[in-house]
Amino acid sequence: MKKFLFSANNLLQFMTEYFVFFGVPAEDARVAAEILLAADLRGVDSHGIIRLYSYYGCRLKAGMVNPLTPLSVTRQTLTTTAFDAGNGLGLVAGQRAMQHCIAKAQDCGAAVVTVRNSNHYGIAGYYAMMALEHDMIGLSFTNSQALVAPTYGSAAMLGTNPIAVAVPTGRNRPFVLDMATSIVPIGRITVYEKSGQPIPAGWGIDHDGRVVTDPHAVLDGGALMPLGGTDILRGYKGYGLALVVDILCGVLAGADFSNQVGKPDNMTRNANVGHCFAAIKIDAFRDIVEFKNDMDHLLNLLKNSPKAIDQDRIYIHGEKEFERAEKYQADGIPLLEPVVKMLKQEAAEVGLSTGLDPIGVIETD
Amino acid sequence: MKKFLFSANNLLQFMTEYFVFFGVPAEDARVAAEILLAADLRGVDSHGIIRLYSYYGCRLKAGMVNPLTPLSVTRQTLTTTAFDAGNGLGLVAGQRAMQHCIAKAQDCGAAVVTVRNSNHYGIAGYYAMMALEHDMIGLSFTNSQALVAPTYGSAAMLGTNPIAVAVPTGRNRPFVLDMATSIVPIGRITVYEKSGQPIPAGWGIDHDGRVVTDPHAVLDGGALMPLGGTDILRGYKGYGLALVVDILCGVLAGADFSNQVGKPDNMTRNANVGHCFAAIKIDAFRDIVEFKNDMDHLLNLLKNSPKAIDQDRIYIHGEKEFERAEKYQADGIPLLEPVVKMLKQEAAEVGLSTGLDPIGVIETD
Repeated sequence: MKKFLFSANNLLQFMTEYFVFFGVPAEDARVAAEILLAADLRGVDSHGIIRLYSYYGCRLKAGMVNPLTPLSVTRQTLTTTAFDAGNGLGLVAGQRAMQHCIAKAQDCGAAVVTVRNSNHYGIAGYYAMMALEHDMIGLSFTNSQALVAPTYGSAAMLGTNPIAVAVPTGRNRPFVLDMATSIVPIGRITVYEKSGQPIPAGWGIDHDGRVVTDPHAVLDGGALMPLGGTDILRGYKGYGLALVVDILCGVLAGADFSNQVGKPDNMTRNANVGHCFAAIKIDAFRDIVEFKNDMDHLLNLLKNSPKAIDQDRIYIHGEKEFERAEKYQADGIPLLEPVVKMLKQEAAEVGLSTGLDPIGVIETD
Repeated sequence: MKKFLFSANNLLQFMTEYFVFFGVPAEDARVAAEILLAADLRGVDSHGIIRLYSYYGCRLKAGMVNPLTPLSVTRQTLTTTAFDAGNGLGLVAGQRAMQHCIAKAQDCGAAVVTVRNSNHYGIAGYYAMMALEHDMIGLSFTNSQALVAPTYGSAAMLGTNPIAVAVPTGRNRPFVLDMATSIVPIGRITVYEKSGQPIPAGWGIDHDGRVVTDPHAVLDGGALMPLGGTDILRGYKGYGLALVVDILCGVLAGADFSNQVGKPDNMTRNANVGHCFAAIKIDAFRDIVEFKNDMDHLLNLLKNSPKAIDQDRIYIHGEKEFERAEKYQADGIPLLEPVVKMLKQEAAEVGLSTGLDPIGVIETD
């Protein structure tokens, strides 16, 4: 299949103009576009420009999301803030909430912030990474539509509820863990379904809770499995982690939770997604230079440790994504032909002036 | 095999006197004993009285742990504190550090505390649960001796580094997640080895990094696998979580990390284990009654959701342990005959006045 290559700047302009078209203020539109672009640059295609319409445009168009993102404080202490996003863009609410969290941690040593009444916020890792330049550890969590079954259950009751943690380093690339608490995202099952291949045993269950290798059975009333998978491999730990994220983002934030969280493309109700952010100022605990030296030491110990047979590299979380982002910044971001076609149609429909101008093309299998 | 049943109070007295014998102040000895007892009551035998000598007594006896646990503050802000445990008991340092963390969160809304230069602190869940009666969410982490290999690695480079999160509820039992970030603890492999049974594929690897079902191969230069197991089931997420715990408890706290963390029974050096605690005051975010009602609602949604075929109950984390603790409080705590024999020998050696007086006996397979 053909892939076209686009400059980061081209995609950024395109998405910014798209958000502005729907009444999103220019500065917010730029923020939203940057977060989607960050996903594409890091290779998390499922949370990038491909969602421009299906996660954001469709509901903006229908007046189901407030383009002004009227973020308001509902409670506040020295080191905590509870926000209501006013059913605005999760991308914008998330970025502002994390900025606020970092400022509080700067003053107090650490801070925790929640957001309720929000929408899909893209990649969790973006917000955690905002802490890096401030020499802080950043944490970011969100709940999402139910797709994951609890251990011994057969129905989707929890979102893929991601956990993201970013930690500054010295010479090494920052540590950036950005993981769904399910084994795989639902999009991975769809990919196997489209290619007609069976999924590995453990990724999903059918509507009776049986572990299946037929992707249809997972998509047709089944559910994803939490990290760990079956009981014997301790899937209840992944289930527990997904539940912790729902407690922080749903219950603590005062947003919806479990199977009550709205889907990003729902046209009848607020999604009422919740997020939770935290920032920890490193020099509240120890000298920042010593910390960064020890981070390098820890990551190097891992990278230089003995490899399993047939393996030649041990990765640190985020490493692959940083390498990919550098490559894509230099060579262009690849988008599949049908995606480009879809985006062009969407742009034509709303009359965008910015075009999508490929800087190259590659053929893939 | 025969199991003897003991009252909680008998074990508590026995352990308290044991710690006092080694110069631990009475109040601290009681704290240490309570934490080990909590493990036995909850059914986490591996972290209870069975470790009295092997994790604590052996090094106290050799003067390798400071029985006075001289906890000191190395840095402090409004909402954070970095402690040095002075190579004291992890149990005592952990309890005091979490108490301090809760007091700070009471004043500020949330708090984060680290402890360096510590020792094995027992079950992570105990400290997280301390937050419950204060209507707070409690978090507790510790690093530990390396037993887990990173994804694509063959050597043990990370501890089983647990994550514990406790959350108050209304009518339901509190949510208490207390999980190692490996699939199983090393003790589980030993149990299979002793019984001559193969382990399930995915729990461990041999010294070449191959997934094996022979428990000997794991124990003989192999390693445990992180939660998720192999790459295909996303074991790098469990590896990432173990690494986050090591970053918080090792690098941020300024303790040892990775394969440099000392073993609990090491007789030549400080273990230099690190812990990290956090407390989040719920009414900093929303009304506590509303929060507890929503927690009940969330947990009930999960418990009442459709069951997988052949399953009749969906559990919430901590539920089994609360039920077990109630049963053991009523009927007595079961200890295997060889464990009782070992404890009696140890008590005779140091000349304890408190005996172990069984209140019953059961025969198991």
